[in-house]
Amino acid sequence: MVQKTTELVANWETLQRIFIRPEDEASRRALVKYMEQILFGLHEFLRKHVGITREASLEELSERFKESRISGHPQKKLADVIKGIIENIAPHAVNVASPYFIGHMTSAIPFFMVHLHTITAALNQNVVKIETSKVVSIIERQVLAKLHRLIYANSGAFYEAHIQSPESTFGGFLHDGTLANLTAMWVARNRCFKPKEGFRGIEAEGIAAAQKVYGVDRSVILVSGLAHYSLRKAGGVLGIGNENVIRVASGRRNRMDPESLETVIRNLKAENPRTQILAVVAIAGATETGTVDPLDAIADVCARETLHFHVDAAWGGPTLLSDKYRGLLKGIDRADSVTIDGHKQFYMPMGCGMVFFRDPGIMDLIAYHAAYINRPGSVDLGIRSLEGSRPAASLVLGSALEIMGTRGYALLIEHGIETARAFADEIDRRPLFELVTPPELNILTYRICPEAIRQRWADAGATERARLIRQVNDLNIAVQRIQRETGNSFVSRTTLNHLDEKVVVLRAVIMNPMTHMGILREILDEQEKIYRGLAVSDA
Amino acid sequence: MVQKTTELVANWETLQRIFIRPEDEASRRALVKYMEQILFGLHEFLRKHVGITREASLEELSERFKESRISGHPQKKLADVIKGIIENIAPHAVNVASPYFIGHMTSAIPFFMVHLHTITAALNQNVVKIETSKVVSIIERQVLAKLHRLIYANSGAFYEAHIQSPESTFGGFLHDGTLANLTAMWVARNRCFKPKEGFRGIEAEGIAAAQKVYGVDRSVILVSGLAHYSLRKAGGVLGIGNENVIRVASGRRNRMDPESLETVIRNLKAENPRTQILAVVAIAGATETGTVDPLDAIADVCARETLHFHVDAAWGGPTLLSDKYRGLLKGIDRADSVTIDGHKQFYMPMGCGMVFFRDPGIMDLIAYHAAYINRPGSVDLGIRSLEGSRPAASLVLGSALEIMGTRGYALLIEHGIETARAFADEIDRRPLFELVTPPELNILTYRICPEAIRQRWADAGATERARLIRQVNDLNIAVQRIQRETGNSFVSRTTLNHLDEKVVVLRAVIMNPMTHMGILREILDEQEKIYRGLAVSDA
Repeated sequence: MVQKTTELVANWETLQRIFIRPEDEASRRALVKYMEQILFGLHEFLRKHVGITREASLEELSERFKESRISGHPQKKLADVIKGIIENIAPHAVNVASPYFIGHMTSAIPFFMVHLHTITAALNQNVVKIETSKVVSIIERQVLAKLHRLIYANSGAFYEAHIQSPESTFGGFLHDGTLANLTAMWVARNRCFKPKEGFRGIEAEGIAAAQKVYGVDRSVILVSGLAHYSLRKAGGVLGIGNENVIRVASGRRNRMDPESLETVIRNLKAENPRTQILAVVAIAGATETGTVDPLDAIADVCARETLHFHVDAAWGGPTLLSDKYRGLLKGIDRADSVTIDGHKQFYMPMGCGMVFFRDPGIMDLIAYHAAYINRPGSVDLGIRSLEGSRPAASLVLGSALEIMGTRGYALLIEHGIETARAFADEIDRRPLFELVTPPELNILTYRICPEAIRQRWADAGATERARLIRQVNDLNIAVQRIQRETGNSFVSRTTLNHLDEKVVVLRAVIMNPMTHMGILREILDEQEKIYRGLAVSDA
Repeated sequence: MVQKTTELVANWETLQRIFIRPEDEASRRALVKYMEQILFGLHEFLRKHVGITREASLEELSERFKESRISGHPQKKLADVIKGIIENIAPHAVNVASPYFIGHMTSAIPFFMVHLHTITAALNQNVVKIETSKVVSIIERQVLAKLHRLIYANSGAFYEAHIQSPESTFGGFLHDGTLANLTAMWVARNRCFKPKEGFRGIEAEGIAAAQKVYGVDRSVILVSGLAHYSLRKAGGVLGIGNENVIRVASGRRNRMDPESLETVIRNLKAENPRTQILAVVAIAGATETGTVDPLDAIADVCARETLHFHVDAAWGGPTLLSDKYRGLLKGIDRADSVTIDGHKQFYMPMGCGMVFFRDPGIMDLIAYHAAYINRPGSVDLGIRSLEGSRPAASLVLGSALEIMGTRGYALLIEHGIETARAFADEIDRRPLFELVTPPELNILTYRICPEAIRQRWADAGATERARLIRQVNDLNIAVQRIQRETGNSFVSRTTLNHLDEKVVVLRAVIMNPMTHMGILREILDEQEKIYRGLAVSDA
């Protein structure tokens, strides 16, 4: 809104102007300058004035955002909005790009990603249908094929035949991994209750009818002990009930134990032979520990029992790009479906989930048509998709693959894994800390566990032991909170089963290539300092 | 990748560089220049060289995108990617920003939206949790409250109490309207099968168990005759079966008839008293015709029968911003839930759906927790959401509301409605055309229906009539296709029930403020010309 007076007024002339890219040099320069502020001003401000976030309580911040009326007339010009975001909002957001931010699966992204993200808005294609995307839908099919080939490595002829065939679907882009997992479970559910003589399929008639026709009393999904909570949610959404999403006990290394899986299957059948297992879900890069389930052994069980095998590789999937470490995901090519997130280890901006299916015909089980789009036989990507309208995230990923190559991504993946290993060694070296789960990929968990408590632990009876565990848990909660609120660095926390106890652990995710051992040592130093401060104030 | 040689190589040094905003002036200037190309180069190229899209068949384009291997080493630099997108991809994408593109609910967006969209990537917050978004989650709550207030207009005290209370949820942001509708139906389903003595609720135990406990044989959703296909999909996903999403017959004006609704309810009960109606869904701005169901009258029925009342206002919702036309949505404040899309009449980039609930406590029915995020009592927005990780679309909408004000948006809405009315008059004036559904909001449908055929129609017997209808349908399909493929302008087509026949209609959506009557007359002229060409070649 190019408005000179302080009182802003919405009128038709200024409105029209904001829909045209301005012709005169001055306006163009202004627009480019705003972009420059977004590209550089934001990060410079954060680097100079803020660490991870400013120390301001949520309660305090909440008070500032309580106006619930939309202003009648314009309140701000774009320039003021950008200034406001840089100076007043960004400092109280979270600087996830900081190499000191190692607590979650969000980090710095390569700067070219911001450009690619901008292109999706500038083009504003809607890939639900060809009529609002044309070649971009074709590119999306290509990008899906590239990742399908990365996972499944079928023959060139296979991809040649399916890549641009409207009858084939390698998978789909979704907003995130939760929806990708949901899509996989949706297909797996429908696969178990297909149409047959006198039954139009579960999608048409619903679960109650499906179970009746198929003689099933209960439908369940078996998941890894460290499965993402989206799988429970999928059970709830899909109508089978989240209590029927059953966790298979993890072994000592936080990985699904194939023998336990077999036992669970045996027990379910013994309990009620009219139980239908819709899918078995393994995880490749558990959210909390980064661990990878033994995919090959689980695939064996699924093959024997003819069960849909899904791998949630939302985090770990891109490890396949590294020749050095792709072996960690051995067996993933035997999965019926795989989830991978673009906004995680493909370093894309939020939000990009993807799901892939080995069989390019299986997504027909969830096909929907309408009179004005997605007509049968069309190339419209919206036919087989949980979502409707959506942007061309595939254009971002496709371009990123061209800019990075597998080798570029591999270097990032390898840095993460190797730095996490070095970090684990450093934790092991420091007496105050205990490494709880060593890194299999680039995630590890540890905790503060003072020598004195460890010694008492050894001799303690059950009651005393429980008290000590609570004490250590509270200590870790306190240190994590103080470090987070201080705002210079950030590790997250979660609760794990460790040596048969529920223990609070600190969790580090090493994905930012700017995070090096010097920084990790500083983070541990700060935690030691916070701990000593607490110990003194306790005394 | 600042690489001078023609052979691009991924190495650690260049990789690290792409994660830092460059310090030296030359690199900074390069990055800004790329943004300039994205902002202006793209649109200038399209304006000069392309209309809606280039004439190239999908088959031809498909041949160019068949490589399914990811290159090992980098193939392109960012500059080349951008150049390639401008010169080779954009011309074969769809120029949805053209004022001649009036076929779908996608149009030009104000240029500031591209900047705001870029900010979301530059900040890259993940609003699933406070720890990766902090103040941005608080802003999202505020933006939701502003729209809730626009719909429901509760008291200031009501909003003051709920706006920042972690126990309250006004609704949620989702990737699109399909997911928003799914969320509404998910809540409505769970509302009918709440936990009670000896039953832990449908979300935990599933539909089969729920229906048994509640003595229900069949669960259904009743929807408007022109309901979006996402509602059928929601029925399929949620496990009730898409055949149990029942369309209530439309009256002559393509609107749900409240009496028909009552008849359907009566008949369902008579057929089997153990039928549970989960929700009644009305539409405010039907995808195909832009019609608005009689919300007040439907609300009356729902109140009498104690049924969940959902309004799919994905398209029409922002009409509430216009004092002049908000009356068209009278009764929307009586809905239990409402869907509105940001990427439609809020003119945001793809993809932004939203759902709102009258009762700020009702989303507890779909709450999920995990050990590492979304802990009970936290402010994490991911607790009550179909999705997990997602970007801060709310920051875009919140800023846009500040830049536009209700008045700015109202001007756009009013332009659309009034131009559509003038367009309808123009269609009425031209003898070759027949207006099929007059615009209630800013969408209308019409068809080519030559005088000669109309005359034969009047006297025709059933067989001849059917033949004539087919002929007219084929004619409209042909004209629409030729116009689309020629690539200068675009209207879409769909099939409607009209005078008890299935007729193919041309569909115009007037949302681009640059679309004026001169352009609309040109589009009709072109259709007349195409028609005459066809008539000659038929002769």
